Formats: sequence, C-alpha cells, structure tokens
Amino acid sequence: MSTTIEIPESSTKVAKGKGVVVVAPARPGGWKKGVAIMDFILRLGAIAAALGAAATMGTSDQTLPFFTQFFQFEASYDSFTTFQFFVITMALVGGYLVLSLPFSIVAIVRPHAVGPRLSLIILDTVFLTLATAGGASAAAIVYLAHNGDQDTNWLAICNQFGDFCAQTSAAVVSSLVAVLVLVLLIVMSALAIGKP
Amino acid sequence: MSTTIEIPESSTKVAKGKGVVVVAPARPGGWKKGVAIMDFILRLGAIAAALGAAATMGTSDQTLPFFTQFFQFEASYDSFTTFQFFVITMALVGGYLVLSLPFSIVAIVRPHAVGPRLSLIILDTVFLTLATAGGASAAAIVYLAHNGDQDTNWLAICNQFGDFCAQTSAAVVSSLVAVLVLVLLIVMSALAIGKP
Repeated sequence: MSTTIEIPESSTKVAKGKGVVVVAPARPGGWKKGVAIMDFILRLGAIAAALGAAATMGTSDQTLPFFTQFFQFEASYDSFTTFQFFVITMALVGGYLVLSLPFSIVAIVRPHAVGPRLSLIILDTVFLTLATAGGASAAAIVYLAHNGDQDTNWLAICNQFGDFCAQTSAAVVSSLVAVLVLVLLIVMSALAIGKP
Repeated sequence: MSTTIEIPESSTKVAKGKGVVVVAPARPGGWKKGVAIMDFILRLGAIAAALGAAATMGTSDQTLPFFTQFFQFEASYDSFTTFQFFVITMALVGGYLVLSLPFSIVAIVRPHAVGPRLSLIILDTVFLTLATAGGASAAAIVYLAHNGDQDTNWLAICNQFGDFCAQTSAAVVSSLVAVLVLVLLIVMSALAIGKP
C-alpha cells in the first residue's frame, strides 16, 4: 500500500515503461522541471531587484551646497515616511525571496510535488502585495516630487534635489521589476500545479 | 463513455482505491464546493468594496466657504493624479470582479474542474497587483495630506479640507478591504487546486 502512495510523484517514467499499470501514460510533466528551474532563476533576479531597490532608496541622501545660518537644505530617504516604508518592505521581500530558494530547489528536484509549490504560491501572493504597496506608495511620492501639486501648493523639489530624485526614481523602477517577477512566479506556479 | 471522460481529474485517488469501479468513492472534495461558494460570496464583497472605493473617491470634492477675488479654494479628487489613478484602477478591479462571477459559478457547479480556478488565480493575481498599486499610492497621498512633510515644506491640508480628507481616507480603507479579499481568494483557489 505504501508503494502505491509514493507513485504519483515519479509516475512519469514508471508509467511509460509498463504496460499494465493503471496510472496513465498521460502524465508528461517534463516541462514542470523546466518551470521549476525558471522559477529559481527568476527568483534570483527578483532578489537582486528587491534588495537593490532597498539599498538604492536607503542610500539616497543629498545636501545642497548652500545653507543659511539656521538651516541646511538636505533631503534623504527618511524625510518621507513612505520612503522608510519602502526600504523596510523591500528588505522584507528580498529576505523572504532568499528564504524561499530552498522551496524552489525542492520543486526542481521533485517537479510533481504539490506541497512546495502551494507554499510558494501563497507566500508569494502575500509578499507580492507587500512589494506592490511599497513600490506604489513610493511612486506616488516620487511623482509628487517631480511634478508638485498646484491645488495644495506642494512644490516640486526635483529642481533642487536632482540627484535625490534620480536615485529614488531608480529605486521605484527596481521595485517594479521585483513586482513583475513575483506576478510571473505566481502565474507559473499556478500553471504547474493546475496542469497535469 | 462520458463517465470515463470525467476520470482524469481524480486519477490519483482512483488508482489507489479501485478494484473494479472506475469513478471511486475516494473523491472527498465536498469542501471544494464549499470553497467555491465562499469564493463567490467573497467576490461579491470585493465588488462592493472596490466600486464603493471608486465612488467614494470619485465624489470627493470640497470647496471652502471663503474665497479671494482671484481664487477659490477647492479640493477634489482630480487635484491629484494619484487619486485619478485610484478611481480608474478601482473601477477596473470592480469591473473585472463582476466579469469573474461566471467563472466562480462554474467552479461551484463543477468543484473539481481545474480550468476555471486556474483562470481565476491568474487574473486575480494581476488585478490584485492593480488594486494594491492604486490603494497604496492613494494611501501615500492621504498620509501626506494628513501629516504634511517638513523637509520639503509640504503643508498638511486636512485642517482646511477636513471632509475631503475623511472621504479620501474612507476610500483608501475600502480599497484595502478589496485587496485583502483578493489575497484570500487567491489563497483559497490555490488550495482548492493543489489539494486532492
């Protein structure tokens, strides 16, 4: 009885060879290994994007070369609560992605196992939401910094703080890459679970 | 013949249990129907939340009772590009959720069919990202409107535009509900696909 329970995960090769066994030849599944390998590679890319975004934002800091007696003009990421949130979320997402690598490896070794992929889908969804929230809120602030807002009299600061704006914009773009990769990862895992 | 066509979705269990009978008694899956029904109900809730958020934000508009000769003080959602983005994304998400109801019904009628759930997972993920982006960016602006930002000299406007702020905050909270429900929907669909 225990042997029949073990069958599902490795039945591909087994089932092809035999003629009598019930578990059908209709379980190709070689592409699942390919999906798992691509999952691993994309995950590495997402780690780079997420941690890169956190680092770029975390090091953004610009002090203007002129100052008054009481005041020095400086902009850094901790001027904005939203940017602090961005750094924290991106670091969390990067950390999660690193920790998820073992699961991805398990999915490569055992392409038909549902368990690891299911865990990955669920956790990926949660951290996709976190990454999107961080990226989108920072994007809203970067947009304001570039364009300002007339009705509320918030002036654009990118004329003065050009380097700061460039750096935060780069961080936002990098987070966007991480978000796109996470969406792709979820879709791939879902297909790998759903299709026979 | 039609009965044998139904087999593939349950071949795992069938192979284990069977001696002679083809469609096995070992097809628990009653909970899948429950999940599908809950999916439908949650989807209705998400529709209400998303469209409510769009409507609340779209009708936010406050004109102050005093004005100068050249200028009248007014704040409405189209003062901010981000809020316009919010209205559009929430309307899109609400529209998608309405269109997804038939798929959800198919999943109730045929709890073991993988196809509809797979489509739902993939599209839900895309629209979850959209909803999160809209909600989070609007949240960043609402936060600024409440607290302002010292370093850039952006003043809080909620002292003057109290009603406007309350309404936009409510819209953001409503979008957050939609996001949470979407995450839940994805997790439920993934479990229903992954577990036998």
